[in-house]
Amino acid sequence: MKGNLLVAHGGGPTAVINSSLYGVITEAQKHSDIEDILAARYGIEGVLIEDFININKKNQSNIDLLPGTPSSAIGSCRKKLTEEDYPILLEIFKKNNIRYFFYNGGNDSMDTCNKIAKLAEKSGYEMKVIGIPKTIDNDLAFTDHCPGFGSAARFVATSAMDLAKEVMARPAHVMIMETMGRNAGWLAASSVLGKINGESRPQLVYLPEIPFDMDSFLKDIETWNSKVTGLLVVVSEGLADKNGEMIAHRGLVDSFGHKTPGGVAQMLADTIIKRLGINAWAEVLGLLGRTSMPTQSSIDRDEAIAVGKFAVKSVIEGKTGQMVAIERISNYPYEFALKLVELSKVANVEKKFPLEWINEEGNGIKEDFMDYCMPLIGDPLPEYASYL
Amino acid sequence: MKGNLLVAHGGGPTAVINSSLYGVITEAQKHSDIEDILAARYGIEGVLIEDFININKKNQSNIDLLPGTPSSAIGSCRKKLTEEDYPILLEIFKKNNIRYFFYNGGNDSMDTCNKIAKLAEKSGYEMKVIGIPKTIDNDLAFTDHCPGFGSAARFVATSAMDLAKEVMARPAHVMIMETMGRNAGWLAASSVLGKINGESRPQLVYLPEIPFDMDSFLKDIETWNSKVTGLLVVVSEGLADKNGEMIAHRGLVDSFGHKTPGGVAQMLADTIIKRLGINAWAEVLGLLGRTSMPTQSSIDRDEAIAVGKFAVKSVIEGKTGQMVAIERISNYPYEFALKLVELSKVANVEKKFPLEWINEEGNGIKEDFMDYCMPLIGDPLPEYASYL
Repeated sequence: MKGNLLVAHGGGPTAVINSSLYGVITEAQKHSDIEDILAARYGIEGVLIEDFININKKNQSNIDLLPGTPSSAIGSCRKKLTEEDYPILLEIFKKNNIRYFFYNGGNDSMDTCNKIAKLAEKSGYEMKVIGIPKTIDNDLAFTDHCPGFGSAARFVATSAMDLAKEVMARPAHVMIMETMGRNAGWLAASSVLGKINGESRPQLVYLPEIPFDMDSFLKDIETWNSKVTGLLVVVSEGLADKNGEMIAHRGLVDSFGHKTPGGVAQMLADTIIKRLGINAWAEVLGLLGRTSMPTQSSIDRDEAIAVGKFAVKSVIEGKTGQMVAIERISNYPYEFALKLVELSKVANVEKKFPLEWINEEGNGIKEDFMDYCMPLIGDPLPEYASYL
Repeated sequence: MKGNLLVAHGGGPTAVINSSLYGVITEAQKHSDIEDILAARYGIEGVLIEDFININKKNQSNIDLLPGTPSSAIGSCRKKLTEEDYPILLEIFKKNNIRYFFYNGGNDSMDTCNKIAKLAEKSGYEMKVIGIPKTIDNDLAFTDHCPGFGSAARFVATSAMDLAKEVMARPAHVMIMETMGRNAGWLAASSVLGKINGESRPQLVYLPEIPFDMDSFLKDIETWNSKVTGLLVVVSEGLADKNGEMIAHRGLVDSFGHKTPGGVAQMLADTIIKRLGINAWAEVLGLLGRTSMPTQSSIDRDEAIAVGKFAVKSVIEGKTGQMVAIERISNYPYEFALKLVELSKVANVEKKFPLEWINEEGNGIKEDFMDYCMPLIGDPLPEYASYL
């Protein structure tokens, strides 16, 4: 049916969330059922105050730059809706004749999206609702991987290559590199992708999937530091002990009730210096990890655009209450297909890093992960000289 | 005269110090007067213990990868030589028939290099000594700029573009981005290069050349935050007050007696939150700032190779006690020439960022700097979409 389209972003942006936005816009422009293409400014908060950007009135040459532009060109937020917000949202959708609604986000956003789809259906308001996946953490279930992950993985992989070279240039140093990843270790694991280049560099990796034990960690460091010059140690920000308590956090919780991690690299470096007397540096990859354009993956960008387009095609076909998911067809050459999965299945499920891809010692990643991840990061990684 | 060549690295590596090494090696391979091409492992410390790498015995295909490899492929150190070390060095040079010595580093290394040249001359040992400039800080005098700066400037420029987009995606946030630069503000200034793309984004920049005053800083933040959505504030790690005291440091000094900076972004973010009640994030670019290969500048790499080659050509012509310097011929198209300057002039002089390129308020950079810096960062910066 004829009506307006609304798209909103939820949670932290990625290097390709604007690519999905570009996919939504350019596909929507082809369908006469879609009248105004609207975007909510600053995510669901923008919907609640009816702060809409009318894309139809925007310059197409600027829209064409979206796939090469990081962060969110329409803004985002990290708001958890209350039960009272939902009826307000429904009234706003009706008032603005929104018949197609797309929410582009991670786990929490898919939960919100699911609730909106259910509410529209229950109240008899005809509105097609589709979730568009996005997360650098790669922790959404029922999809092979998420748009945003490939680029973030490429950033982690090249950073690990570069920092490993850096630490190898000084005798007797250990470098602790902290990646994003609150509960799932996908990003920390991506640090091993560059290991195939140049010398087989020493590297330890600790993921939140394995309960962290300080004594065995220090034993690992002592053993490896005595064997090699310049040890790179990669840790997820969300490392937690056997009771599930994060070993370093800011003492804060976000609006979804999740604890905010932070400081694990510095804490571990300090502990290494104090207890082992070994020089240790801490490096935090920080927000560049989700926004760096020099490491945007071309595959990730192309998939993100395709996912956005598929979402629009799906609502035109009458689909609702679903999330677009990526299915892997083959690794080499890399091929994928798109499909839909029920939002109710996806919402609030976290896909952890598979335990069978972690080595027995719990401090390294097995080769199987390489085949999974390498196709997603785009162009081949550079080849580096071995140290002379 | 016939003899061996020795090259050593001093101080922190850069994205192109291996490019200069490549230049030295490939030029030296052309001259029959040069017998063994030796590299000191881990800088001057390697010389003192005669830990030499014989490059002649190394695989050429690996050497050919050096310009695309970050950090130092022969290792470096940050050791200040004592008076007792110099006669030991001279004996080692004689014993190993070192007739050509190259020290690739910054201010402190040029001082060391100068002393070695003088000692050889005074003692009648015929050895040609040339300094090869290297520093991401761009603070060496008597050269238009230093190899290593262009790549580091590109990293700062693209990071500022990406983080500016990131902070603009959330209402009412300020982001403090901390760059390297202990005493000179060249790197922090480079953050403005991307401003020409997309919307004219709000940005404040604070350099160590201007005494830092917390009250006027907070006034700047308050004023600008009320005007714009998403403010990027760039600070040099070495910001100091009117008495020359760093406003944030680790309470440590390095072996050259320099205070180690650190923590200025977090300190300023905390102060903004506490005193202004404005959300503020701190981002530290860290060691990737000197080692990131995705942002290596092609111009910087080509110049670094040329500088290494020129150093070898110079000793073959009998030159000694000099540093290779870059002279700028034109900006658009960018052209440069190489020359020699006396090491004694260069040693221990710091080239600060020109005050006439800083705006009157002391919180921004003037256009003149763009013409200076833009040619050095290589390929044009990407064009980003304006926010919708």
